[in-house]
Amino acid sequence: MDEFGFIAACLAPLASRAPEALGLKDDAALITPRPGHQLVVTQDAITQSVHFIGDEPPADLARKLLRVNLSDLAAMGAEPYGCFLSLMLPAACDEAWLRGFASGLADDLGHYGLSLFGGDTTRIRGGLALSLTALGYVPDGTAIHRSGAVPGDFIYVSGTLGDAALGLRVAESALKSLNADERWLLDRYRLPQPRIALGQRLRGIAHAMLDISDGLAQDLGHLCAASDVGATLDADALPVSEAAGRFAHPANWLETLLTGGDDYELLFAAAPADAPCLAALAVEMDVPLTRIGVITAGQGVHIHCGGQTLHVEHSGYRHF
Amino acid sequence: MDEFGFIAACLAPLASRAPEALGLKDDAALITPRPGHQLVVTQDAITQSVHFIGDEPPADLARKLLRVNLSDLAAMGAEPYGCFLSLMLPAACDEAWLRGFASGLADDLGHYGLSLFGGDTTRIRGGLALSLTALGYVPDGTAIHRSGAVPGDFIYVSGTLGDAALGLRVAESALKSLNADERWLLDRYRLPQPRIALGQRLRGIAHAMLDISDGLAQDLGHLCAASDVGATLDADALPVSEAAGRFAHPANWLETLLTGGDDYELLFAAAPADAPCLAALAVEMDVPLTRIGVITAGQGVHIHCGGQTLHVEHSGYRHF
Repeated sequence: MDEFGFIAACLAPLASRAPEALGLKDDAALITPRPGHQLVVTQDAITQSVHFIGDEPPADLARKLLRVNLSDLAAMGAEPYGCFLSLMLPAACDEAWLRGFASGLADDLGHYGLSLFGGDTTRIRGGLALSLTALGYVPDGTAIHRSGAVPGDFIYVSGTLGDAALGLRVAESALKSLNADERWLLDRYRLPQPRIALGQRLRGIAHAMLDISDGLAQDLGHLCAASDVGATLDADALPVSEAAGRFAHPANWLETLLTGGDDYELLFAAAPADAPCLAALAVEMDVPLTRIGVITAGQGVHIHCGGQTLHVEHSGYRHF
Repeated sequence: MDEFGFIAACLAPLASRAPEALGLKDDAALITPRPGHQLVVTQDAITQSVHFIGDEPPADLARKLLRVNLSDLAAMGAEPYGCFLSLMLPAACDEAWLRGFASGLADDLGHYGLSLFGGDTTRIRGGLALSLTALGYVPDGTAIHRSGAVPGDFIYVSGTLGDAALGLRVAESALKSLNADERWLLDRYRLPQPRIALGQRLRGIAHAMLDISDGLAQDLGHLCAASDVGATLDADALPVSEAAGRFAHPANWLETLLTGGDDYELLFAAAPADAPCLAALAVEMDVPLTRIGVITAGQGVHIHCGGQTLHVEHSGYRHF
């Protein structure tokens, strides 16, 4: 299967319902903007041996690539609309791999309600590299930014923390057989759940929001810096999944919770008066929303932990 | 210089005039669409040892990456608006390299009048990989597609053909000193000139258009297939630069003209009645517009060459 055969057989069907894509047969996509809306656009790249190991099922890689981008859309309260895919393929990616990748992408595009609008497929010498640009819509003026948190706001996080960091340990352990907890944690690492529906429901409620990709402490630091505020976290309040609770923890468990990446949960600040509304939303959407701290007038992130206060300057994943 | 330092020092200035970029400090860019316009969006990726050698000045690589995308915007008649950059960096790209890359990108963003809106910077094991998504605007309903050519249309190409193919030979020859022609051809390969202004002027004139990236014969084949027509080319009419005319040609020179990639000239079909208007436009814009053939009712591309007719099924660059 050559480049044009792959596009026709595997990628064009992912674009067939989107007139924007022009059948993937033109030089570019053509988008007629939705009246009364703004476009939210994000781009994330992942590369072999850095963001993934390389032995993952290709369908899972496609889904993870899409989901890390959808998580950025969720963090601004956007509804997914379309995407562009750059696929930089080593020779080892044969027809079965290509079909697997396209099939995983098809599943998630359908699940999250967006289409492929275009992109580029090319060779790479070395490992697989993938870049995806995702587009979403928000009604005019409703996008949620990182700035906007004010002192006194409660800090919330969706879901649970640290699962993906433990899942990565499972992946790296190369165990031949996994128990149910290990499988669940591995899944949290391989297939994050972007909080798309929740993000849109938080429009008008969250004063500031982002998704946790580089670790709670560092990402909260970004939110505080953008809002020109500080934050105090209650380490005992950090939400942990049942599977993570049963997992054999590393000695530095709190550090893992604070700095482990790849959870792709939403972190946001909201007025105390909205606490009842958020409690109801958590029940309605069946997603835990845990209050883990408070925005302060100071700078930086302070963490209350067993009577001590830790100050975090910079902590979390850096690519270089 | 770490990831965040590079973004703050080198990339944020490229976004400083664009409110869409949110200072490169949020999860995504936020675009308020221009009333009465459609967005044209394209994405191209280039990788080391496939699209470039690796010893090029980083500023030139940045400019080439941007320009191959701008050429796709030009081919649809769009005005450049903004871009997203995925930079997948090997450890060998040090601070000097990063600053050089950003400086080349800054030059071309300024020259072509667009801003950086966002992207991603990450590590790669192996060679450098780059992906860029470019956005442009066209007034509603004026985008030029590949489809739309009708039998009897004249076929035109901008500029000259084969220069980049010869320039690649110069690059691969690793000569220590180059004469003026060799330098000019190398430049045509390393720094294509996207026909942005010309593309916009061809709105309402070109029935169908694309940019030549994979070679004239193959790209004309794409235009014909999209328009459901055939084409006859006059090999003797193909425009050749003075430098290419003086260059020591390979034995298969016609084949190079027909299949050599990377010229990034515009190829379009227009009504014979518009020939005087195109002649005037070529003078006004100081860009050769050469009539090289005619659209026919048949299928495929036929080439008249010294009394013979060659039929081209598929010919040109394929990535795999």
